[in-house]
Amino acid sequence: MFDASVYVQRRKKLKEKLGSGLVLFMGNEESPMNYPANPFHFRQDSSFLYFFGLDFPNLAGIIDIDNDRDIIFGDDLTIDDIVWTGPQPTIAERSAEVGVSETQPFSDLEEKVKSAGNVHYLPQYFHALMIKMESLLGIHPNKLNENASVELIKAVVEQRNIKSEEEVREMELAADIAYEMHTYAMRATKPGMVESEISGKVEGIALSKGPGVSFPVIFTINGQTLHNHYHGNIMKDGDKIINDSGAESPLHYASDLTRTYPVNGKFTPEQKEIYEIVLRSQLEAIEAIEPGKMYKEVHLHTAKVIAEGLKEAGFMKGNLEDAVNQGAHALFFPHGLGHMIGLDVHDMEGLGEDYVGYDDTVRRSDQFGLAYLRLARKLEPGNVLTVEPGIYFIPELIDMWKSENKLADFIDYDKVEQCRDHGGCRIEDDVLVTDNGKKVLGMPVPKTVADVEAECAK
Amino acid sequence: MFDASVYVQRRKKLKEKLGSGLVLFMGNEESPMNYPANPFHFRQDSSFLYFFGLDFPNLAGIIDIDNDRDIIFGDDLTIDDIVWTGPQPTIAERSAEVGVSETQPFSDLEEKVKSAGNVHYLPQYFHALMIKMESLLGIHPNKLNENASVELIKAVVEQRNIKSEEEVREMELAADIAYEMHTYAMRATKPGMVESEISGKVEGIALSKGPGVSFPVIFTINGQTLHNHYHGNIMKDGDKIINDSGAESPLHYASDLTRTYPVNGKFTPEQKEIYEIVLRSQLEAIEAIEPGKMYKEVHLHTAKVIAEGLKEAGFMKGNLEDAVNQGAHALFFPHGLGHMIGLDVHDMEGLGEDYVGYDDTVRRSDQFGLAYLRLARKLEPGNVLTVEPGIYFIPELIDMWKSENKLADFIDYDKVEQCRDHGGCRIEDDVLVTDNGKKVLGMPVPKTVADVEAECAK
Repeated sequence: MFDASVYVQRRKKLKEKLGSGLVLFMGNEESPMNYPANPFHFRQDSSFLYFFGLDFPNLAGIIDIDNDRDIIFGDDLTIDDIVWTGPQPTIAERSAEVGVSETQPFSDLEEKVKSAGNVHYLPQYFHALMIKMESLLGIHPNKLNENASVELIKAVVEQRNIKSEEEVREMELAADIAYEMHTYAMRATKPGMVESEISGKVEGIALSKGPGVSFPVIFTINGQTLHNHYHGNIMKDGDKIINDSGAESPLHYASDLTRTYPVNGKFTPEQKEIYEIVLRSQLEAIEAIEPGKMYKEVHLHTAKVIAEGLKEAGFMKGNLEDAVNQGAHALFFPHGLGHMIGLDVHDMEGLGEDYVGYDDTVRRSDQFGLAYLRLARKLEPGNVLTVEPGIYFIPELIDMWKSENKLADFIDYDKVEQCRDHGGCRIEDDVLVTDNGKKVLGMPVPKTVADVEAECAK
Repeated sequence: MFDASVYVQRRKKLKEKLGSGLVLFMGNEESPMNYPANPFHFRQDSSFLYFFGLDFPNLAGIIDIDNDRDIIFGDDLTIDDIVWTGPQPTIAERSAEVGVSETQPFSDLEEKVKSAGNVHYLPQYFHALMIKMESLLGIHPNKLNENASVELIKAVVEQRNIKSEEEVREMELAADIAYEMHTYAMRATKPGMVESEISGKVEGIALSKGPGVSFPVIFTINGQTLHNHYHGNIMKDGDKIINDSGAESPLHYASDLTRTYPVNGKFTPEQKEIYEIVLRSQLEAIEAIEPGKMYKEVHLHTAKVIAEGLKEAGFMKGNLEDAVNQGAHALFFPHGLGHMIGLDVHDMEGLGEDYVGYDDTVRRSDQFGLAYLRLARKLEPGNVLTVEPGIYFIPELIDMWKSENKLADFIDYDKVEQCRDHGGCRIEDDVLVTDNGKKVLGMPVPKTVADVEAECAK
């Protein structure tokens, strides 16, 4: 974990922002896989990690602003626990490491919460805790999140959206693990293998160098399916792979990288044509990032670059300014350019995406494609975000648009039909907004056609 | 999945056993890691898999015994879903593959359940479902499991405890993946590496050859801690590793193997002395397995073999019959010899361990050590179980027993003190009870000292 002073400062800042009340952070429990005692890898709640740093289950943290007390609730091990799970420092010893001097048994939490007037808590996603919180707060699980504290959400987002130097160092570590995952995949993929033979090993690298992947690995020859978690296809000569995967750093900061590469190591001319458009758009997007710029503006600029490339290639036509305004590019690029990233890969998505990526100056569009943009607000130094344009040929979407003759002034449906099986292509890096520009995090994973082909040939 | 007739037969058998009522099987949902849309690997509920076979989230299965109807409740994809997750067969098409011709939207489940008189359901561990079941059944999540149907539990256990030929084939596949995991670890481990460098790759092998590990990997130089999930130690010359890990087969049947091996590839004389005792006890335990034998008897026989070895080595003394009766061996061998294994690694533990491993003829002991025996009942052909004796030097337990001078007629505490840092040693295989004996599942992982050292040297 970070030095105790980091957590003390974070809690202090939160207290100053909120001014009064009692703030309750529930730490996660183990999450059962197929019966209670067989859990998935333990993952602590990110906001609990941010303010209290302790990375083990069955804790709660209280910030009692009015009495300026920080308290950790948790239980020490019994001798039976020690036989099965080994000796551990006490809750008091571990709490001291994050600058908390007051600890109480978990069973004391209920009285503490019930005796408080104004309890701030964040929206919950962990259902075992929702059931527990019902007895603490008297609110049914189904009603819990609508009573979460908007004031607390906004204060937490404001703090977590700006990454400190020590956080950026962790995110560089996470990106470096992703470098290993992506370059391994390029080298190891061969025609005739099943996707899972590579995707499983890619996840193994994340587990061998840190806590594991930061999100379910997307590794597929069918990249036109945006969130494809099926890994059972045989990879054939002429196919290309979208590998969208990232790792957690030791302190659970995320990376999220995507590369697209040919299974046999050589792009076909058609693959190369699309790849070069995506690459140009991604490089221009990164180039455009700077403090004070709206990310929505960067997104729309990227959409324009993609539309230009697709016009040159014959898939789009007409006035591209109008095409992008009306969302015609979204047939090919139906998602947003990127999202904040930090302790969560979609940072703080569980607190409400619009609190994180939008603010009073910019509201979410309801246009298809733009509506999926997770981050639109003005960029500030310390923001870390993904830049991940892509071009996809999604047969079901093509059929739907074509049947409506949708935006036909801008789309050459005959040309699109010829390539309906082209699949998908996406390139993604993680970028820090600095005081005067930007920095791509981690060791650079091969990205030009030449560099990708060279890595595949190794 | 298996052929549709397998699932039809399983449901038919259950109907005949229960005779009347409505049986509700909830399929699992995605399990969130750190926010709702970032899930762990999806794992279907094992009993749902057993009776309905479908391996994707957000389903429920009903067996309406009185009207002889099997129904699957679930929702087809929208076009938005298809863009993000790809086209999929309909619920009706997928249900047909498991022999269910009747499907309904998920929202119809509530009416179906509410209109039924006698609803049988199994104990739940998935909290999101517990909250949903509150609205179906009107039972608070905290009260849900005490109202689960004991009749249903017993019927399900009776069926799942006997593995059919096609199930055994899957379990062989799971054991073969574990073979890869264990032999890789022996070959790749070198002094100076961190445990996670190997344990992460071991998990990667499970993910590359199937759905993943069947339980959290235990891979540690501190094998005296029985369920040690910390993988951050540097492995040093002279250390030994306990690797307790297993995989799921494509259809989610589990394997669970343990090997103990020296980090530098050569056992020390002290390590070898203990290892040979554990090996002898494990081979004798396997030898003793046959239909009609109580597994408790096999456990006690194994404890006796361990006690004999420890007496020869000077750690135990006195009359060994009495020593085992009084549980003196449990200072070194504090856990049970094994457990049922199938779709769950501790098969059906979530339904109640005593329903699975005990019956009217044998009750769980409360003696330290023996109390942890998960399987005691009479063995039947088709049972698959683990055989996993071990010897551990647990400093906290030694200190406690010694301070009480506990069972001092049988234990030489001075000798034990000399070896208090010896660590742990365990050897485990998965064994099928056959009509006239037993069969160890999967390719044989090196087990003799010579074979283990030879694998480490590869």
